[in-house]
Amino acid sequence: MFTLFEGGADGSWIVDRVVAIVGESVPRVARLNITTRPDQPPRGGPWPLVGFTSNARYTTAAERAALESRQAPLGRPEATRAVLIPIRKNAAWWAMAQDQRREIFEERSRHIAGSLDALPAIARRLHHSRDLGEPFDFLTWFEFAPSDEGRFDALLAFLRASEEWKYVDREVEIRLTRA
Amino acid sequence: MFTLFEGGADGSWIVDRVVAIVGESVPRVARLNITTRPDQPPRGGPWPLVGFTSNARYTTAAERAALESRQAPLGRPEATRAVLIPIRKNAAWWAMAQDQRREIFEERSRHIAGSLDALPAIARRLHHSRDLGEPFDFLTWFEFAPSDEGRFDALLAFLRASEEWKYVDREVEIRLTRA
Repeated sequence: MFTLFEGGADGSWIVDRVVAIVGESVPRVARLNITTRPDQPPRGGPWPLVGFTSNARYTTAAERAALESRQAPLGRPEATRAVLIPIRKNAAWWAMAQDQRREIFEERSRHIAGSLDALPAIARRLHHSRDLGEPFDFLTWFEFAPSDEGRFDALLAFLRASEEWKYVDREVEIRLTRA
Repeated sequence: MFTLFEGGADGSWIVDRVVAIVGESVPRVARLNITTRPDQPPRGGPWPLVGFTSNARYTTAAERAALESRQAPLGRPEATRAVLIPIRKNAAWWAMAQDQRREIFEERSRHIAGSLDALPAIARRLHHSRDLGEPFDFLTWFEFAPSDEGRFDALLAFLRASEEWKYVDREVEIRLTRA
């Protein structure tokens, strides 16, 4: 199933801020409308951004059990803040084999282990875009209560300081509030 | 980039035989037309079958080096025979984490190590379909010279006898000759 993030005048999320962290930004919009559909829509400009949820590519059974014992679902009433982070990784990342990507992702960057502290405060969902010819490789959607924004910022700082993030060649941070 | 396998009256491959190995078959057609396009087409019935090429999900750097030192490209003039094998894996397969799938795929089934003997005679390309809501999870395309058909049959027999194949709940074998 495909998720569409359509930027425009309508939608249930108000865009508070769009910051280009690495590389080119995306056009500033007032609202974000999120829908799902079974087929990929034809591409037309920088919005909508489109991705699909899928099986996890790196997570071991033990790591998944740790995540599942702590994680919260999307859509909690108190989670009125959200952040959409589209990222693209560079050619060097995608030229690596599975074991090399895993080594950097977890053994050296602690992507999963280091994110556990942010659960269950921060709920998230990963969408894959690279295989669709989209401008970004991944679209990650985060939701949390306003009082947990500091915790989210700490998670972001941790990930951006990691070895894995040296392979990120485009990243945009879109902060939102539920309308 | 998406690859479309369209079954019908036209196309550069003649369909010799369609065999349902596990589960439901696909409609018998006279020809197969293969094209690529940047967007997923809307689904309409059992044909076309659609998938995308992507980074390998299980192959280590050492395994990739072994494959790359032996494998042949598609499109060799002598490779006038082809086989398209759409497969679907069951819910138990997809419920496993990455390390569990890898363990069965290679450590126990020797999918990569056991396929090396078939190279370079058999050229192949894997297309991913599961994330598109397609009826199959994978579409694998094989090409070889008529004199290597026995080698291909041995490869198929090896894979179908593996532990990995216990998770296959739909498989169709489509044998073709270049028109």
